[in-house]
Amino acid sequence: MATMREVAERAKVSIATVSFVINGTKPVAPETRARIEAAIRELDYRRNVVARALASSRTHILALLHPDLESRPNATVIQFVMSAAHGARERGYDLVLWPINDDEQMSHLLAGGLVDGALLMEVQIHDSRVDRLIASRVPFALIGRTENDDLPFVDIDFDTTIHQAVDHLRSYGHRRIALVTQRTKAAPGNEPGRIMRAESAYREAMAILGSPPAVITVEGTSAGGREAARALAADAPEATAVILMNEGASAGLVKGSRALGRDVPGHLSIVSVSTTRELGEMIEPSLTVMEAPAAPLGRLAVNALIDQLEGVQDAPPHRLIPCTLVPGQSVGPPPSRT
Amino acid sequence: MATMREVAERAKVSIATVSFVINGTKPVAPETRARIEAAIRELDYRRNVVARALASSRTHILALLHPDLESRPNATVIQFVMSAAHGARERGYDLVLWPINDDEQMSHLLAGGLVDGALLMEVQIHDSRVDRLIASRVPFALIGRTENDDLPFVDIDFDTTIHQAVDHLRSYGHRRIALVTQRTKAAPGNEPGRIMRAESAYREAMAILGSPPAVITVEGTSAGGREAARALAADAPEATAVILMNEGASAGLVKGSRALGRDVPGHLSIVSVSTTRELGEMIEPSLTVMEAPAAPLGRLAVNALIDQLEGVQDAPPHRLIPCTLVPGQSVGPPPSRT
Repeated sequence: MATMREVAERAKVSIATVSFVINGTKPVAPETRARIEAAIRELDYRRNVVARALASSRTHILALLHPDLESRPNATVIQFVMSAAHGARERGYDLVLWPINDDEQMSHLLAGGLVDGALLMEVQIHDSRVDRLIASRVPFALIGRTENDDLPFVDIDFDTTIHQAVDHLRSYGHRRIALVTQRTKAAPGNEPGRIMRAESAYREAMAILGSPPAVITVEGTSAGGREAARALAADAPEATAVILMNEGASAGLVKGSRALGRDVPGHLSIVSVSTTRELGEMIEPSLTVMEAPAAPLGRLAVNALIDQLEGVQDAPPHRLIPCTLVPGQSVGPPPSRT
Repeated sequence: MATMREVAERAKVSIATVSFVINGTKPVAPETRARIEAAIRELDYRRNVVARALASSRTHILALLHPDLESRPNATVIQFVMSAAHGARERGYDLVLWPINDDEQMSHLLAGGLVDGALLMEVQIHDSRVDRLIASRVPFALIGRTENDDLPFVDIDFDTTIHQAVDHLRSYGHRRIALVTQRTKAAPGNEPGRIMRAESAYREAMAILGSPPAVITVEGTSAGGREAARALAADAPEATAVILMNEGASAGLVKGSRALGRDVPGHLSIVSVSTTRELGEMIEPSLTVMEAPAAPLGRLAVNALIDQLEGVQDAPPHRLIPCTLVPGQSVGPPPSRT
C-alpha cells in the first residue's frame, strides 16, 4: 500500500498538505486538493485510511434503524433523521440509513462489523431489536423508550405535552376532549411507546378533569383522518375538542369533519400533537400544534450514542423534552348549546 | 484476529452456521444467532469482515449528497432518499447520508476512502461537486442533470411533464398560465437543473400557445406561497391558471389567493408539479398534482451507480421519467369575463 509520502510526491505537495486534505484540518486550494484526491485514488491510498479505522476497531459509522421509512415517512421523523445525520457529521461520524424490516437484515448489521453503534427509532414498549442489540453487545441509543427506562434514550415528554394540550383546550372552555391516535402494524399492547404514553397521559388528564375518555385509532393517512371524523361524530358526538396524535391524518380529519357539517374550530377544536408547525400551516384552517422537539432530540440521541462509544461519562443518558405549543386557528370556544 | 472457526467454537455451532448469520444466507434460530453475534463481538471477529471489504478495495458504502436536507426537506426529496436507501440494501450496499455544505466535508468524503461511490441530489447546471468527483475519480450518479448529458443520471422528464400540465389546463380553456417557481441559494443562471428545465419547458409551451409567459419566483415556504399570490394578482392579473413548481409554497399560494378574494379553482386554477399526491391531498381544495416518480428514480439512480461499480455493462446510464397527473379539485374552467 501507498504511504502518505508517496501521495505527497505524486501530487507535488508537502506531506502536511496531504494531511490537511485528509483530515479536513486546514483549507487547501481547490486545484491542489483535486490533485491530492486524484493521487490518493491512483495510489489506492484510501485503503490506508480505512485500515487505520480498522486498527482502532472503530469504523465511525452509526446505523439509524427505522422499521418502515419508505412508506410515507412523516415530517417529524424526517427532522429526527436529518438532525441525527448532521450531529453525527459534526463529531466525525457517518450515519447509515438502515431500513430494517426483517431479522436477516438485523443479522447483517450486527454481525457485519460495519457499524460502531445504532440509533433506534419507532421504539416499541417491548422491542426485539433492543434485545438483539443487547445480546450482540452493539452500543445503541433510543429515540423513544421501551418499558425499561434504564436504557439510554431521548424521548418526547408526552406526559407534559398532553397535559399542556388539555390545559390549552380547557382554557377555551372545553371539557369533553377526544384523542385520535395512530394505528400501527405492532401487536396490540406493544404499540410504539409514543402512542401508548400519549394515550396513558390523556386518560390520566381526563380522570383529573372528571370527563370520560374517548380514544379513536385510525391509519396515519388522509383516509384515516376522514374515518376519525366519522367515528367522532358517531361514537363521541359530545366531544367538542380533539387531541390529534396522528399527523398523517390531520388534513383528512379537518376535511372529513367539514363534510359532516362540523366546522373547525366552530364545532370542533383540534390540537395536533407531536408534529411540525410547517405541517400545521398547510392545513386550512391552520392547526394549533404542539411542535415536536425533533431537531434537538435527534442531536441529543446521536451525541448520547457517541458519548457511549468514546467513554464520555458526564453526558446525561436520559432526556425528555416536551413539545412546544404553536397556536394556529383550529382552537376556539366550544359551540354554545342552543 | 479471530478466525471463523474460533467464532464457531465459542458459540458452539458449526462454521456453516456462522457463515449463514454473517452473510444472511439462511435463517438461523434467534438464540443461536444471538450467541454467534455475541461471539463475534467478544472475539472482535468483526474486524475480519471489515478487513475483507478492505482487501477487495470495496467498502460497499455509498454516499448520498444533498446540500441542505436539514432545512425543511420536502416530501419528494424524502421519497428519493428512502427509495435509494432501500435499493442500496437490496444489492448489499449501505447508504450514508451526507449533508454536505462546504468543501472541507467534500474533502473528507473524497479522501477518506469510506465510500465506493456517490449519489448527488439537487444537481445544478454547473455543479462544482461533480467536477470534484470527476477529478478525484469517485464513481457517481446524478439525480438530476448538469448541462453535460454524458454523465450518468436519472431525472424527471420536465419537458414532457410541463407540456402535459399545460395541455391539462388548456383542456379546461385556460390560455394565460403563469409559472410559480422556487428561489434557491444558487447563483442566478446556476439554479438546480430541475428549476431551469421546468422554466425553459414552460416558456416553450407558452410560445407554442402564443401567450406571454409570467414567471414568479418565491421561497419554498407558506410565506413564499402568499407572496406568490400577491405577485400574481399584481403582476399577472390576466393569468387564470398557475403551474406551481414549488411544493413548499402550495398551501400559502391557495390561502394567499383566497385572502385576496381569488378562490381556487373559481378564479385561479393550480397544477402543482413534481410533488406527492399526499401533499396535494392535504391542501383545501385538494391540489391537482403531477406526481414525481421519486421512488422509481431513487432506485434507478442507486442501481445505475452500483452497475458502474460492479462493471455491469447493459444498464442504461440515462433515464428520464415524466411526472404522473393525479387530478384533484384545484383545476376548473377559467372565470367567464363579465
